[in-house]
Amino acid sequence: MQEVAVQTPGGSYPIHIGPGRLDALTASVPADVTAIALVTNPVVGGLYGERVARALAASGKRVLRIELPDGEAHKDWSTLNLIFDALLENRLDRRCLLVALGGGVIGDMVGFAAAVYMRGVRFLQVPTTLLAQVDSSVGGKTAVNHPLGKNMVGAFYQPVGVEIDTDVLRTLPRREVAAGLAEVIKYGMILDADFFAWCEAHADALGALEPAAIAHAIARSCQLKAEVVGRDERESGERALLNFGHTFGHAIEAGLGYGAWLHGEAVGCGMIQAAELSARVAGLPRADVERVRALVRAIGCPELAPDLGAERWLSLMQVDKKTEGGQIRFVLLSAIGKSHTGPAPEAAVREVLAATCGKVDLAEAVAAHG
Amino acid sequence: MQEVAVQTPGGSYPIHIGPGRLDALTASVPADVTAIALVTNPVVGGLYGERVARALAASGKRVLRIELPDGEAHKDWSTLNLIFDALLENRLDRRCLLVALGGGVIGDMVGFAAAVYMRGVRFLQVPTTLLAQVDSSVGGKTAVNHPLGKNMVGAFYQPVGVEIDTDVLRTLPRREVAAGLAEVIKYGMILDADFFAWCEAHADALGALEPAAIAHAIARSCQLKAEVVGRDERESGERALLNFGHTFGHAIEAGLGYGAWLHGEAVGCGMIQAAELSARVAGLPRADVERVRALVRAIGCPELAPDLGAERWLSLMQVDKKTEGGQIRFVLLSAIGKSHTGPAPEAAVREVLAATCGKVDLAEAVAAHG
Repeated sequence: MQEVAVQTPGGSYPIHIGPGRLDALTASVPADVTAIALVTNPVVGGLYGERVARALAASGKRVLRIELPDGEAHKDWSTLNLIFDALLENRLDRRCLLVALGGGVIGDMVGFAAAVYMRGVRFLQVPTTLLAQVDSSVGGKTAVNHPLGKNMVGAFYQPVGVEIDTDVLRTLPRREVAAGLAEVIKYGMILDADFFAWCEAHADALGALEPAAIAHAIARSCQLKAEVVGRDERESGERALLNFGHTFGHAIEAGLGYGAWLHGEAVGCGMIQAAELSARVAGLPRADVERVRALVRAIGCPELAPDLGAERWLSLMQVDKKTEGGQIRFVLLSAIGKSHTGPAPEAAVREVLAATCGKVDLAEAVAAHG
Repeated sequence: MQEVAVQTPGGSYPIHIGPGRLDALTASVPADVTAIALVTNPVVGGLYGERVARALAASGKRVLRIELPDGEAHKDWSTLNLIFDALLENRLDRRCLLVALGGGVIGDMVGFAAAVYMRGVRFLQVPTTLLAQVDSSVGGKTAVNHPLGKNMVGAFYQPVGVEIDTDVLRTLPRREVAAGLAEVIKYGMILDADFFAWCEAHADALGALEPAAIAHAIARSCQLKAEVVGRDERESGERALLNFGHTFGHAIEAGLGYGAWLHGEAVGCGMIQAAELSARVAGLPRADVERVRALVRAIGCPELAPDLGAERWLSLMQVDKKTEGGQIRFVLLSAIGKSHTGPAPEAAVREVLAATCGKVDLAEAVAAHG
């Protein structure tokens, strides 16, 4: 087992990474907890629900099971309310513990439910997708979507711990592996050129979920993210770098309807677009743009962005949380491993859209990478 | 103008109390704010909306006006969502300022909207009811109701300031004055015997909104609350004392349907019940129970609790946030001005219910205090 420590003003906690963690969850249940709510979706619940409920019950606490409908399309208030209904009907009090067993959608929703149920209860992250393991479960960002924008309603709220079981990746669909790897290579692009080169050298091993390679990739990703979040929990500065590729990516997700592309797929494609923009406004060498493109392709993410029309693209990017006074702030690379935030002229953004969007059949584009 | 300072881990800010504050709001708008959303209800908006919008526009910022339906019955997610819709449609970003102009319902909802919109934006409290001025606008408790319980979904989130204009109380209905005074006398009961005695001596002046008396009552209430909240922002201990009368009061509100009784009316009545319970389990002298009862009556709050049936009463009190491991923790008095929290045997609670509930027509009981 590897351990990565997260230290933020909002709370300090350990991330445990290794095989068999699902059976070792009792150690992460605080002693004064009055009851536990295990929240998952039907797919993950069917695979691991019984086993995790047993592991939690070993703490001697009452375990309530809650199942939410699956998918980004359900990451909204009405689904969140299913959690509140169950907690209140079963009279879970302020000293309860919520456990999020699933991918990023479950983690974001359960985290937000914990942030606001009775003005805040504790929660434990047990991420079961690669993307959640290397990104969304670490750092305390929680949220639900709004029809006018992704993650528009949420909170910064830290868990009491993150338990990452590397065994569960074996049951992960191929597309989900690629989506998770998109966030892994992102850390190299924005923060660590050596790690980026390591990912290039191990792209096949990562795609094949080779145990030593994937464990190293998860641990290094969590470490890089923990360092950034420790210095800037509430995204007043440096943390915004983690959004590399996300302004484009969120527009893809919103433009096609949440769930058509996986978040990581949209980010993978969005990182190529952000690299193209960086070449135009931040001096990123053309050769580095091609390294970004090649690695996104190697891990199996879509390379061609959907053609939503330039006006719609610009409008969708505008509503993203990263605007300030109406101006979009992009994360830009000056080199692999060196990033900063800044504005970009609209003309440059239009050029990037013209160069990266394709008039291909969208369903086909997704299916081709499925 | 009087100023009371609030200092908590979640933020420090001033409370300004005095006549004419509505026209002096510009000073409370932080310089780096990108836009302002003024949120109110039709009644308060009709009386003061135009004037406050003008005062805010003097800051040179864009001012968006949002009107929410009036009343505790609308303090729910769907009303909250009207705020998010308006903010997103008008593209207010992370550096916007929300201004809550209204009573406790507006303050709680706008505060919670600020806590979770884009994971947290700033907000200013401009309370226009006496209850909101002396209680809910101070201390950062924000929330909406759930069908299974009041304030079940919310956050601890501090405003950037509180602006209390004492002039606006002139337009306040009689029932609202009584409801606000209930929270004023509460501070004396739990924390300050001298202030309680002062309230007894000035009950008529307070009911008549005599300027010097009401200004002193507001400032002293805010000061006592600020001291408690400064020591215990997130209600892990001492802050719970502020809930005196609230376990009974919340059961009245939920049992009759939110809005039938005003929150302060329910708390006024609930304080008599809590005093009766204190006499049975915490040694409160009978004479002090009668002083509590007499002052609740003098300020014009209901004295007789609704007869919901003992089982329903117990069930409604059980779902209150103040339970831990299934046991209700009551706020109890050992003397006027001396309070603590603790459990109470169910038999004593049943005795109190039998002694304080009346089989009167509920609509009539409310009307009689209208």
